[in-house]
Formats: sequence, structure tokens, C-alpha cells
Amino acid sequence: MTFSKRAQRLTGSSIREILKITERPDIISFAGGLPSPASFPVGPLKDTVMRVLADAPEAALQYGPTEGIAPLRQWVSNRFASRGVALDPDRVLITSGSQQGLDLIGKCLIDSNSKVLVETPSYLGALQAFSLYHPRFCAMPSDHVGIDVDALTPELLNDARLLYCLPNFQNPTGRCLPLPRRQALVAKAKDAGVAVVEDDPYGELSYRGETLPSLLSYDPDNGIYLGSFSKVLAPGLRLGYIVAPPWLYQKLVQTKQAADLHSPSLNQYLAYELVRDGFLEVHIPRIRQLYRDQCQLMLSALERHFPATASWTRPQGGMFIWVTLPEAIDTQALLASAIDRGVAFVPGAPFFTENAPTNTLRLSFVTVSAERIEAGIRLLGELIQAELAR
Amino acid sequence: MTFSKRAQRLTGSSIREILKITERPDIISFAGGLPSPASFPVGPLKDTVMRVLADAPEAALQYGPTEGIAPLRQWVSNRFASRGVALDPDRVLITSGSQQGLDLIGKCLIDSNSKVLVETPSYLGALQAFSLYHPRFCAMPSDHVGIDVDALTPELLNDARLLYCLPNFQNPTGRCLPLPRRQALVAKAKDAGVAVVEDDPYGELSYRGETLPSLLSYDPDNGIYLGSFSKVLAPGLRLGYIVAPPWLYQKLVQTKQAADLHSPSLNQYLAYELVRDGFLEVHIPRIRQLYRDQCQLMLSALERHFPATASWTRPQGGMFIWVTLPEAIDTQALLASAIDRGVAFVPGAPFFTENAPTNTLRLSFVTVSAERIEAGIRLLGELIQAELAR
Repeated sequence: MTFSKRAQRLTGSSIREILKITERPDIISFAGGLPSPASFPVGPLKDTVMRVLADAPEAALQYGPTEGIAPLRQWVSNRFASRGVALDPDRVLITSGSQQGLDLIGKCLIDSNSKVLVETPSYLGALQAFSLYHPRFCAMPSDHVGIDVDALTPELLNDARLLYCLPNFQNPTGRCLPLPRRQALVAKAKDAGVAVVEDDPYGELSYRGETLPSLLSYDPDNGIYLGSFSKVLAPGLRLGYIVAPPWLYQKLVQTKQAADLHSPSLNQYLAYELVRDGFLEVHIPRIRQLYRDQCQLMLSALERHFPATASWTRPQGGMFIWVTLPEAIDTQALLASAIDRGVAFVPGAPFFTENAPTNTLRLSFVTVSAERIEAGIRLLGELIQAELAR
Repeated sequence: MTFSKRAQRLTGSSIREILKITERPDIISFAGGLPSPASFPVGPLKDTVMRVLADAPEAALQYGPTEGIAPLRQWVSNRFASRGVALDPDRVLITSGSQQGLDLIGKCLIDSNSKVLVETPSYLGALQAFSLYHPRFCAMPSDHVGIDVDALTPELLNDARLLYCLPNFQNPTGRCLPLPRRQALVAKAKDAGVAVVEDDPYGELSYRGETLPSLLSYDPDNGIYLGSFSKVLAPGLRLGYIVAPPWLYQKLVQTKQAADLHSPSLNQYLAYELVRDGFLEVHIPRIRQLYRDQCQLMLSALERHFPATASWTRPQGGMFIWVTLPEAIDTQALLASAIDRGVAFVPGAPFFTENAPTNTLRLSFVTVSAERIEAGIRLLGELIQAELAR
């Protein structure tokens, strides 16, 4: 039996292996990227599902349009309109999570050896999705707030098929791209004819409730935007959406049709009925407060237990803190001893496409109790101090 | 902006355009491939969803394993065991409908110009999914019951990456591959080292309740089997599964992870809780009877209204009848006048990869009322007779 070349090149995900270990209940895991189950709207969902199955069972259980159900696409359009971005609902494609959006974009835009610009570091799931289509990744110089737009030279931009970024509370760093850089980034990409793919699963999770303008808002006719219901409703619904320019939209729909015909009708009706009457305006502030408090607990534990020679991001939203340890520490080796002591995190190297540093790591705080955050960070701090003392 | 080569080659689906027209309520449509909404288990689903959201809301709404939830994979394994096929649940991958299974198999097995063997005619959704990976389709000679196994020469089998077939009540023809051919087909493919991909969404819909052994049962270690919950529960859940041999399984999981992380947890728990206690043993016989009665109505209307020079299949299960008209009739042209008169069907040509005849068509009977079946077939018969009289 013969695999396709693309399947031959596939390799397992190191993070996936880590996550399997960290599912053990005795492990204090800062490794996951899961939203807090405390944020799942179980009660409202019960009411909604009964209403959907009573009012429109045939539509909710039947095949549906590949583009997604019309009212949900209209809702996405309205939400952008409320932020001053006029957007035809015919540009909205409902996807089976944002991950599917990444796969469809890769399918439609990436040939073998196509140049794809990514942040340093970048979201691993996107690197995996794009990798299937064998791009040549080029890392854009980035700092503690995101892409260093001044460093985007014509040479770097030249001939790139797409520029992929997460401007809001990025996974893995938690950083947020400042307003002037957003505007400049879009302008430079537009001049160079490079499609900007803006992945925004965390934008709603701003702790202070302030959200900077989307990259899409600076160039609504050309931007590609990925949205998700995973962090504001529940990831188990597997629902997201792409906003795509007209030149790309039909190709995405055709690849989506070949990929899974359409996203589950039931889930789409559930999401629409949940959000249609302003539920998110009440629900999202609760998630923001929960995550802000959890983040604060972890930041304060880091201050107390990590060495002064370590540094970390102080996110204003989202689910992750990014830690840079002294160069003497190899976080892959640290992970092995940490798991022995009952704590887990994700080493930073897999998030880089080139020149991966060995001394970074990602911490997630959202699903861990206050006591376990304190205990886990203290343990990690001890391990690091011991390693430094050797 | 530059598309990938695969996106550049994409073309719209002619059937998709037909289906848009036939959604008009004034059209009697035999064109769809939708299961009957009368078969959707709305009541049991209401009870089940309340139970799942009461008992296990966190698991049902959270991210889950790419392979699918363990109890559902075990249930699939048990169902095969009850038919005498021993199957490790570690070989079962839950997919977002069978369509996703086809896409993942194409991704893992097809390179540009790889030989892929298909039936004459074959399922259009599979042709679309595989086409993204640019195979060289080779049509296997087939007759009114399926693949002509004697005609599978070593030259035809040589170097093929996969052999794709629907042995049970095939879409589009409704035909069913006889037992001796099943055994011979698997033996020949095995000798030639060709992977057999068995797509079986309709196997449960045998009107007399008898199901022939799956191709998988003749070579459980090597067969690839695609199953679906769309025709026995509801397509709006978008749930299916692949049974894959160990050499292929991990590659499929890795491509599935890149494609959508996993199928919706909620839908998987719903399906599992619905089927775990034997619900299908009561539910499927009801669907069989419904479809058998509908099929009988259409066959009887065809006898009365179609010319003696037309022929059609007499399915023992599934959702489709395949009609071959006299060669003078072009079914694409017939469709235009039929839609003018308020009836729709699918012309047969798109289901062929080579030498497409112009005088075939597919009829679906499952979602149309008795009165409309009679009226629609009478109208079509009149149109055909008028065309022949010209």
C-alpha cells in the first residue's frame, strides 16, 4: 500500500502526546488549551435545544447548505456591522471550528513551496493545517506585542501567498498587536498583494472589555477573518466561521463541500438561537472576569515563585501566558522532570518554524483551580531554581 | 492573489445548481438525496439531549479526542462483532459525516495522477472529494448489479492506489453487489495490493432486512470501511466513521486533527446515547418499511407511465432508482423541460468519469408524497413520450 507524498511527510504532534499524559487527574496541567467548563452555558443550551427540536426539527436534523444556515451568517454580518464594519452575509462561511477554516484556506491558497508568513512564535494548529500543503514558512520578526511591522521588508513580503496572524491575545504568547501596527500591517500587506489571514478566537476575551479594531476593518474588501464559537459558547459544538473576500469565497465553499458537505445543522441552529437575542452580551463578560481572575492568580504566583531572571507576558485577555526562562534551562528536559513531580506545561519550541529557542514555555490558567495554580507554579519554580543552581 | 493549483482546477457542481432550483416548493423533486424527515427520531433525541446535558455537560461541550469518543468507537466495534467481524475499536475513527472520510482517504492515499478505480457510474460526492487530489480515475466495467469482477484485469488493477465502491444499494443506481462477486472482488484486490474502500451509507436500508456480508468481512485486516449515521439517525448531526487498517489509521487521525480537530463532542454523545441500548433495532425497520413503500409506489408509477423502451433498476434497499431511457433522449435537455413543467431529477452523466451516456437519470423517492410521486412520474413519462414522438 502506498501513501500519498503528503501523508508520508506527516509526523505526530509532540503536544498531542503531552496532552495525553496530562489528562491524568493527578497532574496539575497548565498544558491544555481548553476553555473553562465553568464558562459553558449549559442551562441556556438546554432551553435552546428543546426549542429548536420543538420548532424546527426537520431543518435542524436534515442536510443543509454548505455555506451555513442563513440566519447565523446574517448574525455574523450584523455583529461586524455593530462594530462599524459593513459585511455582506454572502461573505460568511460557517465552518466546523476555526481549525477547518485554516485547512480550507491552506487547500485554496498553498501549493508546494508557496511562501507563507507566520508570527514568531505562531499557533501550532495553523502550522499543522498549512503543513499538509507543504508551504515554505517564513517567520516574521516579532516582539512582546506581536509582529514587528517595520521589519516587514519588501523581500520578506514578496511573493507570499498569505500572512497569518492572531492579533488578539495570541496563542501561544497572549500578546496583543497595538493599534498603529494593525493599520501599518494591513497597508503593507495590501501594497505587496499579500492576503492577510486574521485568526481571532480570543478577541472577545479581553479582560477589560476593550477590543481593538480587527485587521479586517482596515481593508474589509480583501481581508480573510476566522471567527470561533469555541471560546464564547463551547468547543464541543465545533463551530466557527470564515469571512472571505468574493474572489476567494466560492473556492472555499467548494472545498468545504468536498470536505464535509456542511457543518452540523443542529449545532448551527443551537448557536443561532442562543446568540440571536443578545445572550453573549451577558455571557462574555462572565467569561472575561473568570479568565482575568485566573490569569491574575497565575501572574501573582509567577512573581512569587519564578526566578527574577525569568520573564513572562502579562496578557490583557485570552487564555495563555508565555514564559522565557534563562537560556540555561531546556524546557523540553524541564517538562520530563515536571511531569515526574505532577505538573505539566507546553514547551515553546514547536510553536516556532525556525530558530526555535529551547528556553520558552506556554502556560494556560483557565481550567486550573486557585490552589492548584499556586501549588503547580511553586513546584515549577522550585524545579527551575534547582536546575539553575546545578 | 494566487490560488493553489488545486483550487484553480475546482469547478462548480452541476448537481448543486440543480438542487438549488429544486428547493422551490412548487417543484416535485426526485433530484434530492435527502433522507425522509419522517425518519428522524425527534422524540428520542429530545430525551437523549436532556440526559446528556444533565449527566455529562462538560464532556459533551468540551474539546475531545480526534479519534472520537471511546464508547461510540466501542459501539461500532460491537456492531461489527455482532455480524461476526472482530474489529479492534482502535481501528474506528469518528468522522464529520462519511464525506469527511472520503476527503481524509483522498488526502492520505492520492497523489497527482494516482490511479483510482471507481464504479460505472459512481457516487458524485466521492468523485468530488478525490478530485481535489488529482487522481487518474479508471472506470471499472459494471453492470446492473455492480462491478463486473471478471473484467478486473491485472492491467486495470495494476498500480491502483485504491478501489472505491458502494456494494449496498449504490448511489446513484440502487444496485447491490451479489455475494460471490464480493468475495472475488476482495480476493482480486488483495492479490494486486490494492486498498478497497467500501462506502456503506445505505447497507442498513435493506427493504427485506437482509444485509449481505460487508467487503470488510472478507479481509478485516486490510479493508477500509466508511459508515454513516446520516441515514439511520439524521444527517444534520454530521456523523460517520472510518474503519481503517493499522497501517493507515494514524495517518487518517493526523489529517483529521488538521482538518477539524475532532467531530462535535455533543453530537457524538447524542448518537451514542441514542444507539447504545438497541434503539436502532426498532428504528431501522421503520425506515426500511417507509422507503420500501415509497420505492414500490415509484416503481409502479414507472411501469404505468414510462415507455416500454425505458429500463430501470428495482432496488432492494436504499434511496435511488436509476433509469436508462432510449438513446434518443438527452436527459440534460429533458431536465430543462421537466423543470418548466414542475418536476426535477438528476441527469446521470456527472456520475461517470468517462464515456458518460446522455440517456440516464437518477430518481429519489424517499421525501416525496404518494400523490406527488404519481403526478411527477406521469409528467416525466409524458415528456419522454412526446420527445420520442418527435
